[in-house]
Parts: sequence; C-alpha cells; structure tokens
Amino acid sequence: MASVSVDEAMRRAIELAARGLGTTSPNPVVGCVLLDADGEVVGEGFHAYAGGPHAEIVALAQAGHRAKGGTAVVTLEPCDHTGRTGPCSDALVQAQVARVVIAVPDPTPVAAGGAATLRAAGIRVDLGVRATEAENGNVAWLTAMRRGWPYVIWKYAATLDGRSAAADGTSMWITSEAARMDVHALRATVDAVIVGVGTVLADDPRLTVRNLRDGSLAIRQPLRVVVDSAGRTPLDAQIRDAAARTWIATAAEVGAGPDGGVDLPALLAALHAKGVRAVLLEGGPKLAGAFLAAGLVDRVVGYLAPRLLGAGPAALVDAGVTTIAEAIDLEITDVTQIGPDLRITALPRKREG
Amino acid sequence: MASVSVDEAMRRAIELAARGLGTTSPNPVVGCVLLDADGEVVGEGFHAYAGGPHAEIVALAQAGHRAKGGTAVVTLEPCDHTGRTGPCSDALVQAQVARVVIAVPDPTPVAAGGAATLRAAGIRVDLGVRATEAENGNVAWLTAMRRGWPYVIWKYAATLDGRSAAADGTSMWITSEAARMDVHALRATVDAVIVGVGTVLADDPRLTVRNLRDGSLAIRQPLRVVVDSAGRTPLDAQIRDAAARTWIATAAEVGAGPDGGVDLPALLAALHAKGVRAVLLEGGPKLAGAFLAAGLVDRVVGYLAPRLLGAGPAALVDAGVTTIAEAIDLEITDVTQIGPDLRITALPRKREG
Ligand SMILES: NC(=O)c1ccc[n+]([C@@H]2O[C@H](COP(=O)([O-])OP(=O)(O)OC[C@H]3O[C@@H](n4cnc5c(N)ncnc54)[C@H](OP(=O)(O)O)[C@@H]3O)[C@@H](O)[C@H]2O)c1
Ligand SMILES: NC(=O)c1ccc[n+]([C@@H]2O[C@H](COP(=O)([O-])OP(=O)(O)OC[C@H]3O[C@@H](n4cnc5c(N)ncnc54)[C@H](OP(=O)(O)O)[C@@H]3O)[C@@H](O)[C@H]2O)c1
Repeated sequence: MASVSVDEAMRRAIELAARGLGTTSPNPVVGCVLLDADGEVVGEGFHAYAGGPHAEIVALAQAGHRAKGGTAVVTLEPCDHTGRTGPCSDALVQAQVARVVIAVPDPTPVAAGGAATLRAAGIRVDLGVRATEAENGNVAWLTAMRRGWPYVIWKYAATLDGRSAAADGTSMWITSEAARMDVHALRATVDAVIVGVGTVLADDPRLTVRNLRDGSLAIRQPLRVVVDSAGRTPLDAQIRDAAARTWIATAAEVGAGPDGGVDLPALLAALHAKGVRAVLLEGGPKLAGAFLAAGLVDRVVGYLAPRLLGAGPAALVDAGVTTIAEAIDLEITDVTQIGPDLRITALPRKREG
Repeated sequence: MASVSVDEAMRRAIELAARGLGTTSPNPVVGCVLLDADGEVVGEGFHAYAGGPHAEIVALAQAGHRAKGGTAVVTLEPCDHTGRTGPCSDALVQAQVARVVIAVPDPTPVAAGGAATLRAAGIRVDLGVRATEAENGNVAWLTAMRRGWPYVIWKYAATLDGRSAAADGTSMWITSEAARMDVHALRATVDAVIVGVGTVLADDPRLTVRNLRDGSLAIRQPLRVVVDSAGRTPLDAQIRDAAARTWIATAAEVGAGPDGGVDLPALLAALHAKGVRAVLLEGGPKLAGAFLAAGLVDRVVGYLAPRLLGAGPAALVDAGVTTIAEAIDLEITDVTQIGPDLRITALPRKREG
C-alpha cells in the first residue's frame, strides 16, 4: 500500500468519525488513522458507541507492533482520563508512536490534557490539521460541551408559501416520501427529539427512527421529549409507547418561563445533564417560535414542498418579531433537492446588540 | 473561420434570439445564423423590435452574395406574409440559399406557410433541430399564440416561512438588492406587469423597469395593469405617472367574474388583443390566489429570503384550496442563489380531471 500524507490521513479520519454520528453521545465522534514510520496506513478506527472503545484504541489494536515509531492522526485531542475506558494518551505512549496529529483540542476540563501528557512522554504533537473540517463534523458535541447545553436543530416542513397544513388541517403528506426518509436519517444523528404538546394533541406522532430500508425500528432511538407545561399529553399518546424512551417535560419538573410555559433554557440544561448533546426540534410552529425568539436554535433545516396552499396554518408563529428590522436572519449553507422537495439548511446569524 | 455544424449554428441562433426577449412583442423572438456552402458563418441576426427587421433579413444583409448555396439556420419557421416587413420566405428564396433548417414551426395561421413556400421554390427544409431548446426560448410567445391569451409568470417575494411582510406591515426590504435587481431584469422580459388594487393602495409601487447599472428608466417599459374592479386606484398613485403606460382594468370595462371582481380570463384576452404576450403578475397575495385558483399561472418565480418572521401577511391567500389533496402542485425547474436569497422557478403541474 502506498504511503499517505498526514493531511490525507486526517481527511480519512474525519470521514471515519462521521460514522459514529448519533450513537456516541454523550461522547463526541472521533476518527483515527495510524501511519507507520513509512507513512503507510496500519490502523483505522472510529468511536462507535459510548462505553465502546475509543477510535485510537481500535486503530492501535489493528496496528499492533507496527504503531511503534509511527504517527497517530486523530480528529480530537486524545482523552487523558479514565472513564468507561482507560486514557487514550497512555495507550499511545505505550504503543510508542513518534508523533500525534490532532485536528481539534478537547474542550472538556475532565478529558483534556491528552496533548500535554503525550508531549511529556516525548511524543511530537501537532494541532490544527484540517481543524475547520473536523470541527464541522463534531459541531453539535463541541458546541454543547463548550457552552453547557445541547446543539438544537429546528426542522420544519412547509409548502413554498410557508404553510404546514391545509385550511382543514390535513397535512399528510405535504412533503414527499424521500423527504420523510431524510428526516429519519436526521433523527438518527441526534440524542433527543423535541415537540410541543400541541403537536402531540394534533398529530399523535411516534417520533421514532425507522430503518430506511424496511421500515423496522432502528436499534438506537433518540429520547422523545414533549414540552408540556401542564402535563396534557394523553395517557394513550403514541409517543408514550415502548419503542423509545420518552420524557414529558412539565413546568413543575423543569421550571416555568416568564410566560408560564416550560422554561426552555432550563429544559436544555436538564437535557444536557441527561447526556443529550444534539436535539432535533420538530415543532410545532409555536414551540419553534419560542425557541427562535429565545435564540436557542443553532441550525434550521426546512423541507419545502413544491406546492402552494394559500390557506392553512403557518410553519412558524410567535417568534417575537413584529417589524421587518427584527427579522431572524439566517445564512443558507446548503440547498439540496430531496425527491421533488427542497431541503434548505441555514444557520441563524448572530444578532447584534 | 472554421466551419460549424448545423446543430452548433442552431445553438447560436437560439442564443441570439434570446437577446430580443421583452422588446419584440407582439412578435416572437427569433435568431438566425447563415452558413455558406462550406459551413462557415457568413451572417447572424436576431429580431430586436416589432417593426424592425426580422432575424433572417439581418443575417442575409450581412452575408450578401455568400448566402447563395448556403444554409439558413433559424429558430422559428420564416414568416410567409407581408406585415410591417416583407415575407422572409421570399427573401431566402431570392438569396438562393440551398437549405433552411428550422427549430419550431410557426403556430400562427397568418404567418405560417414559410416552409411550404421554401420547398415549392426547391429549397431543402429541415424541421425540428434543437426544437425543445428553441421552444423554451420562445415559450411565452408560442404559448400565447397557440391558445390566445398571454403567458403569465407569477412572481413573489417571501421569507423562508412564507411571509411577505412583518406583523406591522413593514416589508422594505424582505429580499436583497440583488434579488430586486433580478426582478427588474425579469420585468424587462415581459410586455405587461399586473397588480391588484390592494397592492397599489398598500405600497403605491411604480412598477417601472430601471436600468440595472445606474437606476435610470429603461427605454421600453411594460404596460402597467391594475386589476381594480371599482376603480379605487387613487388619482395620485405613482403607477399613474408618465414613466410608462398604465391601464386601470375595471370590471365595467373588462367584465365581472362570478365573485364580482374583474373577470380574469376576459382580462387576459383583452391584454392579448393589445398585443401583450407575456405578463408578470406581481401580486398581491389575493390577486395571485385568484389567478392560481383559475389555473391561469404558467410559471412561478419565488424569491425566498433567508429570514424568519413567524407573523405577518402570507405571500399567497385564497387560492381555492381547502384540503391537502387539492394543493397546487408545482415542478421546480431551477433554484438559483441571488445574493443571499434563493430564486425558485417552478411550473404548475397539469391538474387531472
Ligand atoms: N410542518 C411541520 O414541520 C410541523 C411540525 C410539527 C407540528 N406541526 C403542526 O403544528 C400544529 C401544532 O402546533 P402548535 O403550535 O399548537 O403546537 P406546538 O408548538 O407543538 O406546541 C405548543 C405548545 O407547547 C406548550 N409549551 C410549553 N412550554 C412552551 C414554551 N416555552 N413555548 C411555547 N410552547 C410551550 C404549550 O402548551 P402548554 O401551555 O399546554 O404547555 C404550547 O401551546 C399541528 O397542527 C401540527 O400538525 C407542523
Ligand atoms: N411579497 C410580495 O411579493 C408582494 C407583492 C405584491 C404585494 N404584496 C403585498 O400584498 C398586500 C396587498 O395584498 P392584497 O391581497 O390586499 O392585494 P392585491 O392582491 O394586490 O389586490 C387584491 C384586490 O384586487 C381586486 N380585484 C379585482 N378583481 C379581482 C379578482 N378577480 N380576484 C382578486 N382580486 C381582484 C380586489 O379589490 P376590488 O374588489 O376593489 O377590485 C382585491 O381586493 C400589500 O401589503 C403588499 O405589500 C406583496
């Protein structure tokens, strides 16, 4: 096998890391590529499940003695603490690698320090290779760890004229099957899905992740969260079924916000404490409005169906905007055709003032 | 100069034809490329203004004697009648071209027959080269001529959540300057712009075409049409200024529809009689709803701003849809980023039944 550059190895490590998306929480996704002294790939690994081996350990096991004198290329600073597994920094020292190349430093006080430990053992450590790319691949976890509450993706589906249902309330289906499959794939990357009790009462959704091929339930299901100040979620609501865990988040448990609803920052802090790093906010329009008004949305994913209704409920209400100068400005980062629909991904711009 | 194929010449002729968009009505856009016997380009022309020379005449004048024995490649069947100019079929016969290659036949009874005249004069005539492309380039005129009323493009501007203004009515500006410049370019391709009297009363728009570079008025202005059943357009409305012609289309003049408003099919027939082939329907939401409900929209151009409002008037109302199965289905044909905004072009799908 031909030798590869450190840069090329990092590209590959970032790819490997992404395979863990949705199954590693509360841990980050991490990928690792081990090169021997000649630059040949002798080991590859990614972190797949919390409690399972870290990426470096998988790669070191593959490489065996060939790791000695080689280079470990890893997307995140190797951990320095003993959690469910031993510190990766020690494992790298014991394997006698000569060099460790890291894309992004670990922002958590408890796990950080890996680079220092490696350096103290005489290993050359380089930081920042393909950092932006690796950062993007881990954006939810890194954002959540740095600030202490989960990364929030708001997903909505609407017609080109912004309706989420027809005048008589019918909405099955506004978007195509391809778009709905795409939502399942999106759900599979998060730790929790959130809806307002209004959506539960109106639609009685299940909010599970189903396998895209045969419709069977995926093994790992995100926590289902209903934002329900007074506990109005019916006892026989489908969201309470056994297919996944469910949390009915009431104001009594979480705390009440200024308007008497569930306190949303407290809700997110509570989810963080439960190990949730990425959440998908699936509506409805009122809860989405409250999240947006509070500046709690990190990414918007809109599925726009090429249809017009001219009547019916709006995709978003009560976002705290009354005049055009207060509009919530986004930056579109991706537009992809999904079946006949458009999927628009956008990031809220930081507000001034 | 190297010789070019007939196919390549047609591609070029279609490009040339497009330069006339917006200035040839009530005539079509037409492009012509003349090849000599060796396949070298010896003349090029397009129809620029009604009353001005046809594409074939421009190209023949350039080619002079080199047209003899050559091939005329033309996007539309050469006309066979004497209007403001003589028949192009005769001019091609006199120039002694050996072959005429045509993309699309002329659908008008009075001008058609050019191919037959050419064949009768012993000229080889081929029809259908790059027909779809040429058809698309002339779609407004061809559609209008085939069915007897103008091609209607509905343009709207909205946020990603489908609002055309904020809760307090402010809407300047929802979309970017780049998008507004693009609308001017779109206006410059049509013969008339239409708005409802509601928009005139709310916004007092001018609806002129301004030059994109310096903001000065373009030489050719589309007819401004206000759909105003009872003649409520204020006497001092800007739309009545001298910058362009204006027609206040009242129910008394045009006829009333079943709901007492202006009869829209009658309006379009009247515009056709005035030589209008392409119109840009610029709203508001209510008039757009009435056009869509009546199936009178041929193309939708939506400018979506990457912003959220969560309140405020919708981009479209009263389109005659009450349940999801009745939604007006579109097919998206283009998505282009214009500055920060998205321009989505879509065609209504034919309804069944
Ligand atoms: N197109 C889409 O993508 C989409 C997605 C989901 C739903 N929907 C549609 O949305 C409709 C339901 O909309 P909705 O707006 O009534 O329901 P919702 O947004 O799902 O729920 C709103 C409710 O959440 C509760 N809540 C608790 N704390 C809150 C807080 N801090 N801020 C805001 N709400 C809080 C409130 O009820 P309590 O005061 O009782 O707690 C509130 O009425 C359904 O028709 C559904 O089909 C559309
Ligand atoms: N975002 C955008 O792209 C955009 C574009 C334009 C306007 N707007 C906004 O739209 C708002 C005005 O909306 P609007 O809905 O009130 O006004 P509109 O659609 O411009 O005009 C509607 C009026 O047209 C008249 N009309 C006559 N015949 C009609 C027919 N057959 N069908 C429907 N209407 C007919 C009716 O008044 P009579 O009965 O008196 O004739 C009707 O009330 C303004 O706030 C403006 O800012 C937005």
